[in-house]
Amino acid sequence: MATMNQGLEGIVAATTVLSHVDGERGELIIGGFPVGELAERATFEETTWLLWYGDLPSQRELNGFRRTLAAQRALPGATLTLLRECAHQRLDPMDALRMAAGTLSLRSDDPHAVLALCPTIVAGYWRLLHEAEPLEPRHDLDHAANFLYLLTGEPPDQERVRALETYLNTVIDHGLNASTFTARVITSTGSDLVSAVVGAIGALKGPLHGGAPGPALDMVFEIAEASRAERVLREKLARSEKLMGFGHRVYKVRDPRADVLAVAAERMFTRGGDMSLYTLARSVEATAVRLLEVYKPGRRLQTNVEFYTALLLHGLGLEAPMFTPTFAISRVSGWIAHTFEQKRTNRIIRPQSEYVGRRERKWVPLADRPG
Amino acid sequence: MATMNQGLEGIVAATTVLSHVDGERGELIIGGFPVGELAERATFEETTWLLWYGDLPSQRELNGFRRTLAAQRALPGATLTLLRECAHQRLDPMDALRMAAGTLSLRSDDPHAVLALCPTIVAGYWRLLHEAEPLEPRHDLDHAANFLYLLTGEPPDQERVRALETYLNTVIDHGLNASTFTARVITSTGSDLVSAVVGAIGALKGPLHGGAPGPALDMVFEIAEASRAERVLREKLARSEKLMGFGHRVYKVRDPRADVLAVAAERMFTRGGDMSLYTLARSVEATAVRLLEVYKPGRRLQTNVEFYTALLLHGLGLEAPMFTPTFAISRVSGWIAHTFEQKRTNRIIRPQSEYVGRRERKWVPLADRPG
Repeated sequence: MATMNQGLEGIVAATTVLSHVDGERGELIIGGFPVGELAERATFEETTWLLWYGDLPSQRELNGFRRTLAAQRALPGATLTLLRECAHQRLDPMDALRMAAGTLSLRSDDPHAVLALCPTIVAGYWRLLHEAEPLEPRHDLDHAANFLYLLTGEPPDQERVRALETYLNTVIDHGLNASTFTARVITSTGSDLVSAVVGAIGALKGPLHGGAPGPALDMVFEIAEASRAERVLREKLARSEKLMGFGHRVYKVRDPRADVLAVAAERMFTRGGDMSLYTLARSVEATAVRLLEVYKPGRRLQTNVEFYTALLLHGLGLEAPMFTPTFAISRVSGWIAHTFEQKRTNRIIRPQSEYVGRRERKWVPLADRPG
Repeated sequence: MATMNQGLEGIVAATTVLSHVDGERGELIIGGFPVGELAERATFEETTWLLWYGDLPSQRELNGFRRTLAAQRALPGATLTLLRECAHQRLDPMDALRMAAGTLSLRSDDPHAVLALCPTIVAGYWRLLHEAEPLEPRHDLDHAANFLYLLTGEPPDQERVRALETYLNTVIDHGLNASTFTARVITSTGSDLVSAVVGAIGALKGPLHGGAPGPALDMVFEIAEASRAERVLREKLARSEKLMGFGHRVYKVRDPRADVLAVAAERMFTRGGDMSLYTLARSVEATAVRLLEVYKPGRRLQTNVEFYTALLLHGLGLEAPMFTPTFAISRVSGWIAHTFEQKRTNRIIRPQSEYVGRRERKWVPLADRPG
């Protein structure tokens, strides 16, 4: 007897050693490490190696991996041509990323190339949208630093690189979310890596998944001063508006990623010299969580990862349309790791549908149809 | 308690009115019609209307739909540029289709445009691979006829158009197969139609799904004469070779689509004047089914859709690398219908994974790692 489960909640579709989300306890494990143990210490290359190969790399392995990635950062010419056309039409950066990533089959199905090229695509497209030429990738910088360089042309300082790496490590993998699951379904048919990644980017784009991290910060900007938080938030809740940045389908306590990103944001803003936005955001958060318990008792709506993602990426100088593409730059590493895992124990993923339509209809020739 | 089910077999992930697969009884319903009632009577436009809007179109609706589709067949310039680059690198036609379909966001997210452009992409790419220029789509031909025209430059005769339409109608939808499920997962995040279709093309490409219809015919060619069928097939089975074109994960009796396509192929080959390949294929099929019951008793391995797909498409003059792209030209209509259905009652599709990795790992600084 088939079980109906439209969102597949509670259905286990894969075993994994990559990450574990415990929504009741508010815990996230990445490659065996609690996210708080790993995210602020590792480089993005180290976390990627951990997910792809199961352990932290040795110095020699890491050096080789950094060189391999750095050597594959230059865009294929056809990809750049396509990005120019996208920019000409002012396409959303996620659409441009999906399209450009799709063209990577012209270069290689090598996971290193796919990973290495995403920052080049995202930063290059951002520059094209702002009437600037894409920059040549730097081979002497690591993945995160090179991305910041490709956006601005300035070699980034260490605090900013560290903040970005902590962010990238924090969101690199998160169980069988919709994009990761998409990558595994595509891989389960025996298809190629680029197909899996392109499908996953398309899923991540959706506003119910990764496609809406901007509005959390908009709310903070709208409030503007800590003293206004209570009044503005009460008005929103009284109008039954959803508070962006709070609540998650899986986490019933505070999203553990929010803590890691809050610490990283605090450190970055402290060193950067302007704490006012950070202080305001913390105040808005505290007020929102308190009021949500009043207006929606028992719903356990807590700060989610989007709230501090927005704050941290804004602090790095990224504008809201870049938040989801930057998320993708990290998550592609997790997607690739999941395709490796899916291939090792593959079985094609093919659920059932329940048919609720008509049966035994008889053909009616065109001339005999009403209308 | 979560249930582990790696391939999601027996898990119902959606209700649908689009199609129903009864593998035990060997029945396929499309839009309420048994496939045998619908496939050989409807035009592809009628079947698409049926899936998209729930009923057969009136004359007026059909005329409007044909005009709308016909008006959107011309490739965007950027898509053609990309296809030229793909052809230059001799990419697989499914990779080229996935890439080119991805660029349709440059034109429109309109389902008519997405459907209408697939034959233009597939036929245009085939010509580019053969050092010929893509042809301008014809506005006076229907979808299937225009595809045949775009391949050859010759207006196709009615028997060939009818055979192709019967094929397209037969494979237009088939429950929650992996590509259709991919389209629904991507749509469930709130993402756009092009993203869903591109993800689905990537899934269809996999050899465990739509990506391997050629070998069934290779076996028929290898046998070459009906009198050799028994010996060649016995040798293959004795070597434990898989017989391509037989067996299906869902169907435990004869795939109902095989019957429809066998009739269509017989008709086309009869009118075309050369019955020898058809007669040989029927003979190979009968021998294979008989021997499979001997060598793999109880497995109930029957002729699947790929066997007659290969025969019919070969008869239409299509070469094996075109079989899966032609499948996609049809199935995209079903994918689009599923995105409509998913949107109507949406809930994000997010299954769980079971974590079987390490826990509570402690960070080890790079200098302290072995190796």
